Amino acid sequence: MGKFRFNYRSELLNRYVDVSVVYPTDGYRLPPSDRPVNRTHNGPAASDAFEWRPGMRFQTVYLIHGGGDDDTLPFRYTNVERYAEENRVMLVAPDIANSFGLDTSYGKRYSTYITQELPVLIRSLFPSSPAREDNFLVGYAMGGNAVLGNALLHPENYAVCVDLSGGIGWTPRTEMLKQEIDSDHFQHFPVFVNSFGPSSELEGSDHDLAAVIRRGQAAGVEFPKLYMVCGSREFIRERVEGDVKALRELGVEVEYELAEGYDHNFDMWDVYLRKTLSEYLPLKREIL
Amino acid sequence: MGKFRFNYRSELLNRYVDVSVVYPTDGYRLPPSDRPVNRTHNGPAASDAFEWRPGMRFQTVYLIHGGGDDDTLPFRYTNVERYAEENRVMLVAPDIANSFGLDTSYGKRYSTYITQELPVLIRSLFPSSPAREDNFLVGYAMGGNAVLGNALLHPENYAVCVDLSGGIGWTPRTEMLKQEIDSDHFQHFPVFVNSFGPSSELEGSDHDLAAVIRRGQAAGVEFPKLYMVCGSREFIRERVEGDVKALRELGVEVEYELAEGYDHNFDMWDVYLRKTLSEYLPLKREIL
Amino acid sequence: MGKFRFNYRSELLNRYVDVSVVYPTDGYRLPPSDRPVNRTHNGPAASDAFEWRPGMRFQTVYLIHGGGDDDTLPFRYTNVERYAEENRVMLVAPDIANSFGLDTSYGKRYSTYITQELPVLIRSLFPSSPAREDNFLVGYAMGGNAVLGNALLHPENYAVCVDLSGGIGWTPRTEMLKQEIDSDHFQHFPVFVNSFGPSSELEGSDHDLAAVIRRGQAAGVEFPKLYMVCGSREFIRERVEGDVKALRELGVEVEYELAEGYDHNFDMWDVYLRKTLSEYLPLKREIL
Amino acid sequence: MGKFRFNYRSELLNRYVDVSVVYPTDGYRLPPSDRPVNRTHNGPAASDAFEWRPGMRFQTVYLIHGGGDDDTLPFRYTNVERYAEENRVMLVAPDIANSFGLDTSYGKRYSTYITQELPVLIRSLFPSSPAREDNFLVGYAMGGNAVLGNALLHPENYAVCVDLSGGIGWTPRTEMLKQEIDSDHFQHFPVFVNSFGPSSELEGSDHDLAAVIRRGQAAGVEFPKLYMVCGSREFIRERVEGDVKALRELGVEVEYELAEGYDHNFDMWDVYLRKTLSEYLPLKREIL
Repeated sequence: MGKFRFNYRSELLNRYVDVSVVYPTDGYRLPPSDRPVNRTHNGPAASDAFEWRPGMRFQTVYLIHGGGDDDTLPFRYTNVERYAEENRVMLVAPDIANSFGLDTSYGKRYSTYITQELPVLIRSLFPSSPAREDNFLVGYAMGGNAVLGNALLHPENYAVCVDLSGGIGWTPRTEMLKQEIDSDHFQHFPVFVNSFGPSSELEGSDHDLAAVIRRGQAAGVEFPKLYMVCGSREFIRERVEGDVKALRELGVEVEYELAEGYDHNFDMWDVYLRKTLSEYLPLKREIL
Repeated sequence: MGKFRFNYRSELLNRYVDVSVVYPTDGYRLPPSDRPVNRTHNGPAASDAFEWRPGMRFQTVYLIHGGGDDDTLPFRYTNVERYAEENRVMLVAPDIANSFGLDTSYGKRYSTYITQELPVLIRSLFPSSPAREDNFLVGYAMGGNAVLGNALLHPENYAVCVDLSGGIGWTPRTEMLKQEIDSDHFQHFPVFVNSFGPSSELEGSDHDLAAVIRRGQAAGVEFPKLYMVCGSREFIRERVEGDVKALRELGVEVEYELAEGYDHNFDMWDVYLRKTLSEYLPLKREIL
Repeated sequence: MGKFRFNYRSELLNRYVDVSVVYPTDGYRLPPSDRPVNRTHNGPAASDAFEWRPGMRFQTVYLIHGGGDDDTLPFRYTNVERYAEENRVMLVAPDIANSFGLDTSYGKRYSTYITQELPVLIRSLFPSSPAREDNFLVGYAMGGNAVLGNALLHPENYAVCVDLSGGIGWTPRTEMLKQEIDSDHFQHFPVFVNSFGPSSELEGSDHDLAAVIRRGQAAGVEFPKLYMVCGSREFIRERVEGDVKALRELGVEVEYELAEGYDHNFDMWDVYLRKTLSEYLPLKREIL
Repeated sequence: MGKFRFNYRSELLNRYVDVSVVYPTDGYRLPPSDRPVNRTHNGPAASDAFEWRPGMRFQTVYLIHGGGDDDTLPFRYTNVERYAEENRVMLVAPDIANSFGLDTSYGKRYSTYITQELPVLIRSLFPSSPAREDNFLVGYAMGGNAVLGNALLHPENYAVCVDLSGGIGWTPRTEMLKQEIDSDHFQHFPVFVNSFGPSSELEGSDHDLAAVIRRGQAAGVEFPKLYMVCGSREFIRERVEGDVKALRELGVEVEYELAEGYDHNFDMWDVYLRKTLSEYLPLKREIL
């Protein structure tokens, strides 16, 4: 693969930020040229390879890390870079800094960053296809809720959304979230409370997923195809399955998979990121 | 600026390599959009800014480091990233691993890598303009000779070449280089001798710059505009000025500047990389 | 120099963070050994060089970036890495994420991170001298106020503090800061207001520098030697000079330098970071 | 984990190089301090955690990548960073640039770099235990042969050596290697031929492993405990098993494991790097 960590000053976040990116470059070769090129001894056969050419574009997965992690962790603790190579897809992993993927109440606007600034930037500076059918949103743990909320809030951006083990943050159960915000447990977790803001202001806001869904339905939008996965041993299983049920009751289709025997850790996410790329997402695995 | 270090498996070098890249992104803003975007409080005024858009392209300087350095050094020991921002140009710095920019005799082919693989890759994966008038080759110290030789060997690629303080490697003086290869001094510097190969095989090869120039002239090619600079205190001044004289005798036009008071170090290259971007190169400083 | 960006999970910030570090390694050589070592042709003479040895320690400068920047910017937009080499000092640059160096009111505790976690970590994992006389705190722009406040809050940590162009954040003028918090200007800059918290809770808190100073004086602490610098053309000059005056009225000694002709930008900070390392700080420039 | 890529100017390689390093830092906490520290909500319980303290040291695995890879690949294509955390060991991965771990005949001296410069540097600049019992050498593919040769050439450095899938480079079968060097196949692979040098100069040199072993035996040295592993489907299986046989005939003890069902790729190395850290190496998994 090709890999890099892009560092630039974000307009919306008003500071320099990091974005980890990988390209599926291993199968590419130089085009034949007039000047003879002594190719290396063990590259792929010409017939199996793509050729570099200006204007080429990749399908793109936006990959959102879990709580406490940053953009580098998915690549260090899973083999997702290899799985992207196997499926010829580009990965874009921003850093969301324990924000739950929200436009936080204390002023850092990660939702707008992920869904508006980042796609414009990525399509302008890197070879990412802009078509909705080529763009996907995938997250694990805290990043699972972040992708669930942002996919429903900006359904026009993404063909498919995959929420792996998302058990903290955005939920379609508004009353439960209000209770969480006011609970003793979360009052000792100030970045949670200060990201969502006061429970009294939740209803109808973009942090209230039930309201977001109803607004989308009223406007006739097509939501991205939605996958949710939880390990059978995860401590958040009840929360995830309650969210699946609530989404369905709200009329949102969800493919739910219980990952038998798995717990809330990177052994699970390594296996399910591979499955996400090889099975859940409708990847083309060819040059665009 | 936007900055990253791209790591990928090079086809020609047959291994993973690093390329440092910077984009002039500070003056860019998101385009206006339907969904209102609460812009940050202190971005540039809309009238002063460019907008991100798919298909945008930058003029591109390929920047070659000195002996003992790698692709990261120009950015650490000079402020060239800031100067690139001031001049709205993209920089691409490969790692040439003490190879003198040659297709070395021991089998690592850095000349072909720099002049054939890298431009195809950069234009395919990043927003770099492919037009000759938008592409430039700049190097310091060992990288100065590397750009001199590669610009003359592949004149179709580059509009301008700037050689700062290049005092080791490619030279238009064939006999002198043969003596260098066979000298006691360089016999204790095996990567030099093993990069050029035996002096007996020099004449007429791509390592023989006089031969390269005559072949180009015979074929009627237009060489890139060539700048050479040397500090008045540099220990290699005689070598550089001898090369300038020899190039002119061979009919190659060179703009030569003596940098009064400067020595062979990064204080000089910081100042002259700024001058290269702000004065020597015909940069457009606008969106392409 | 040796350089790296350390990424680890901070206990206090509860997430993975980046810290940029440079070592002054260019003058070091391997020790002589039994097995003959064919040294490279152009290293420093043995008499000029230090030798690597387990247990060696560097003096250490904690370097805090400005608003909108991160830990990588000082190294990209100034040549401070070279100046550290010239002065044989290690640099440690954390990322403070537009926090003003505060234990923010929304729950991210950058002051405690910088002054308590980071020194313990750096001295445990890297060769940094723990002695107060070997530790320094330096910042520019927003980082200038961050170092001013943290040096007065944790005077036992640092021998000297240098505040370059600090015009936003911690100030000894409590009433002025309360007015800033409540002003129209900053009400449109939510991360400022939400970092300091309500003006009504400022007095006597760790965000109230006058109170911090009085507490320190009452406890008989010795404050670090304090330098403040401002460019004559900086838009924040009045703010800086007012802070200098207020500090002196509170009985805190400050060396103040007006940088004639300089503005609030990296041309100034490049020059004054060099001066900081070569003149302001009492660096030993020898092996510890 | 803590992770970084250290970039510095190597004395022996005479240029800037990269070394990837990981620390097992996740289980560490700040020590209790006078000033009350409001710990994060979900760190490990004090009783389960180690505390940061100056002078702490880690056991250290030197990890050598395969042909065509660099120091970053083991961390991208396997989860070895996680396995190092599970086993509380530090990893140090240098870049060996398709050199087979040799002091190459064209002048780049990777064997001396890996076995002499790197350990001195790592123990001076990072918290690595210098005791032989705490140091290990592990490699895969081309890196497998590199660790085999260097462990036998410098047995005093390492307690254990693990060669996973090493099928190109150093071998105890001198005649076979001479034939390889002169073969059509490798004459088209110039970095191989130019690394080993002419077959006529092989015997008795450090590139001749049988000679290295006999010299060591004559001097009465204790070789590191040696593990070799090959997948049952690897195309190099015959080469590996021939080497195992030849080593045993020379009197060198080898633990050989056939990895049933595995091929020459990262699915194998991910599993066997985990096994290396959790089973083969005598790791202490405690604070030193």
